[in-house]
Amino acid sequence: MPDQNKTAVVVGAGLVGSLWAVFLARRGYQVKVFERRPDMRAAGYSGGRSINLAMSERGWKAIERAGIREKIEPVAIPMPGRMIHNLGGELAYQPYGKTGEAIYSVSRGGLNLELLSIAGSFPNVEFFFEHRCVEVDLQNPLITFEDLRSGEIKTLEAPLIFGTDGAFSAVRYALQRTDRFDYRQRYLEHGYKELTIPPAADGSHRMDPNALHIWPRGNFMLIALPNADGTFTCTLFLPFEGEVAFEHLGSDEAVLGFFQQYFPDAVPLMPTLLEDFRTNPTSSLMTLQCAPWQWQNRILLLGDSAHAIVPFYGQGMNAGFEDCTILDGMYETYGGDWSRMIPDFARQRKPDGDAIAELALRNFIEMRDLVGDPRFLLRKKIAARLHERHPDFLPVYSMVTFSNTPYHLALREDDAQNRLFERILAIDNIEQKWDGPEVEAVFREWVEAG
Amino acid sequence: MPDQNKTAVVVGAGLVGSLWAVFLARRGYQVKVFERRPDMRAAGYSGGRSINLAMSERGWKAIERAGIREKIEPVAIPMPGRMIHNLGGELAYQPYGKTGEAIYSVSRGGLNLELLSIAGSFPNVEFFFEHRCVEVDLQNPLITFEDLRSGEIKTLEAPLIFGTDGAFSAVRYALQRTDRFDYRQRYLEHGYKELTIPPAADGSHRMDPNALHIWPRGNFMLIALPNADGTFTCTLFLPFEGEVAFEHLGSDEAVLGFFQQYFPDAVPLMPTLLEDFRTNPTSSLMTLQCAPWQWQNRILLLGDSAHAIVPFYGQGMNAGFEDCTILDGMYETYGGDWSRMIPDFARQRKPDGDAIAELALRNFIEMRDLVGDPRFLLRKKIAARLHERHPDFLPVYSMVTFSNTPYHLALREDDAQNRLFERILAIDNIEQKWDGPEVEAVFREWVEAG
Repeated sequence: MPDQNKTAVVVGAGLVGSLWAVFLARRGYQVKVFERRPDMRAAGYSGGRSINLAMSERGWKAIERAGIREKIEPVAIPMPGRMIHNLGGELAYQPYGKTGEAIYSVSRGGLNLELLSIAGSFPNVEFFFEHRCVEVDLQNPLITFEDLRSGEIKTLEAPLIFGTDGAFSAVRYALQRTDRFDYRQRYLEHGYKELTIPPAADGSHRMDPNALHIWPRGNFMLIALPNADGTFTCTLFLPFEGEVAFEHLGSDEAVLGFFQQYFPDAVPLMPTLLEDFRTNPTSSLMTLQCAPWQWQNRILLLGDSAHAIVPFYGQGMNAGFEDCTILDGMYETYGGDWSRMIPDFARQRKPDGDAIAELALRNFIEMRDLVGDPRFLLRKKIAARLHERHPDFLPVYSMVTFSNTPYHLALREDDAQNRLFERILAIDNIEQKWDGPEVEAVFREWVEAG
Repeated sequence: MPDQNKTAVVVGAGLVGSLWAVFLARRGYQVKVFERRPDMRAAGYSGGRSINLAMSERGWKAIERAGIREKIEPVAIPMPGRMIHNLGGELAYQPYGKTGEAIYSVSRGGLNLELLSIAGSFPNVEFFFEHRCVEVDLQNPLITFEDLRSGEIKTLEAPLIFGTDGAFSAVRYALQRTDRFDYRQRYLEHGYKELTIPPAADGSHRMDPNALHIWPRGNFMLIALPNADGTFTCTLFLPFEGEVAFEHLGSDEAVLGFFQQYFPDAVPLMPTLLEDFRTNPTSSLMTLQCAPWQWQNRILLLGDSAHAIVPFYGQGMNAGFEDCTILDGMYETYGGDWSRMIPDFARQRKPDGDAIAELALRNFIEMRDLVGDPRFLLRKKIAARLHERHPDFLPVYSMVTFSNTPYHLALREDDAQNRLFERILAIDNIEQKWDGPEVEAVFREWVEAG
């Protein structure tokens, strides 16, 4: 039955938490949002370890549903393709999709600020910053916070709790202690470090701003996403240990030598490279999966707290925002009955969380190999030609990025296409025959086999 | 360099902890063993949720290395094969290996008691029962316990810590909070409940004591292992939810009806069935994997705290005991240098932990299907014949149970044999040709392909 109470606690005022507060506010809920960090509207946003965001269709759909697209659009920079930087400094541009399709570079801090101020403009949304969640009572509908400024411990009634507190979610820790809670966290052997490319003297971007720049180098890579202020936020992805690895970059000389060897065209664009490298932390990359995402009918995890993924498909935020779209859609379908919505959402959405986790891991290999592997490039070429001839044969990238197809179907398609290309690339002399009738025959057979 | 200090803290006095204390004591260490529960030597063993243990080669090897085989052997009952109970009550006996090979039924409580008293007989082993580990300091070599009787908090120096505190290890929780710690816990949809078959009026066993009894029923099963006192410890494995599931067994009528339908020959042997069913908890079954198993050179997880597995291969204790054998072997090889032993053991042994976890999950399906699936039985028959003709073709069960082959090689062999039998079972009319030249040809091709 519909919720008479109409009060909700949201734990975490990051991207998903503040967006979800907007959705709840629009549904007439009294929303209390608790956040461990200070109010970034007053304190300013502290960067240094955020990978820039690439907003795509699923993100926009949620933003639009929340009625705030016109607030976000002006700060988003379209990137219709990726610009690949070869070792020799040559550039190669690859469009992501069809004409008009693009992903959008958005700064995490800027977007979060915007969402906070939109949520804060609702009279029925109340924020409590510098409040750390210390206990979620699973027996009684209570939740406890520590006010980090005063040290005061506050317990409040919370018949409905949303855990949007990220990969290290305190709400999820409460669920983790219950019997039969499945949980998995796995780290990449790669870490990442944020760097920056400042604007040119005239304030313009130092590279084409309408592209996601990639320096793919096999087992590691550098990427750069444009910001509205003329800067680029760069991220270096590199193994912690190994032959070429963070462990060997302990001195300015080593860092400079490494960049000059592998990213020579980037070095002149990065005057603060050495300082940034020293100052910014080396952070780790984790995939987090768990189940169930809910406790009974009153606690639900959304976004990273339920499904943190690696950033290589640009889908972390998009997946979290899609959680909001789907759950708000269920609110209509189920007439606001959380006792049905919460378990159903948790069960139905879980395969999509698992699927995008897997796709994101696969895309890391794809991005790193963009230049190195000739067979991979051949596959790309054949896929593009097949798509021209058979428009229904959609690249999985487009399905994930430019559609709202459930992620688990996109993963299934990825598996199927991998099987297809295994067979195509096994054709003798495929390099010569890549556009010939044999490929077409294998393709038709694959389509017919379904 | 060798450890001059020669003091060690063992957290957890279960099977692996108390055995490992014996190994350390024999190496001349001053060992402090802390255990959350009361001393079972005084308090008695509380059963009700322990699956009986099946000691096999790896377990015996450790016991023997510790020099205590003659203490354990008298309480172990050999089970050279399994006795399958069909729905109609017919029995079918399958030997586990060659003549003379057997697994041994051992009661968890009895074995733990014995190991505790052996460890306690060393003057350099000190026990602290009812002490709960509350903090492991990762910065300094300190560990903190709460004395559960007095409430007193005690912190002590601990340059060398072994976490043998089981699947819910407090030592591991400290490691889990560190960056880049991989962790996975996944529950089966099945739970289990311990039941019992008392002795006959004359004190003898009510069924053949020299067998592991199985009532395989497809998606669930009942098993029974003999104890030295004439009883059998039975375990029902059943889904929590579903068509036939624990959720429907909430009344005596339902329980009795279920047993009469599926295990009719067992009902007359279980006079306390309904009481046991009501009294004993329904417990869950988890696979736990993590990495790394160590913190720097001074904290190491052993046994279930590093690799808890489901019980269906009878290898949980055997794997933990093998940890002790291997680590004690390294003590010789490395001249007692923990700074090399701890990281090397953690890295080298991890693939074996992962492999036995996977094999145990696979064996659950095998055990449940022992009767139901004719193709599975056909495979068994062909495998046995191949082994007769080619003695080097060893069943994976024997490799795991009757050898000390590293688990990861046994898993690799299992994968290879699965591929072999996929091809053999694809032969047209294999039911007629199972002993013919076609099978032999596929086998030879498989052997040659390596």
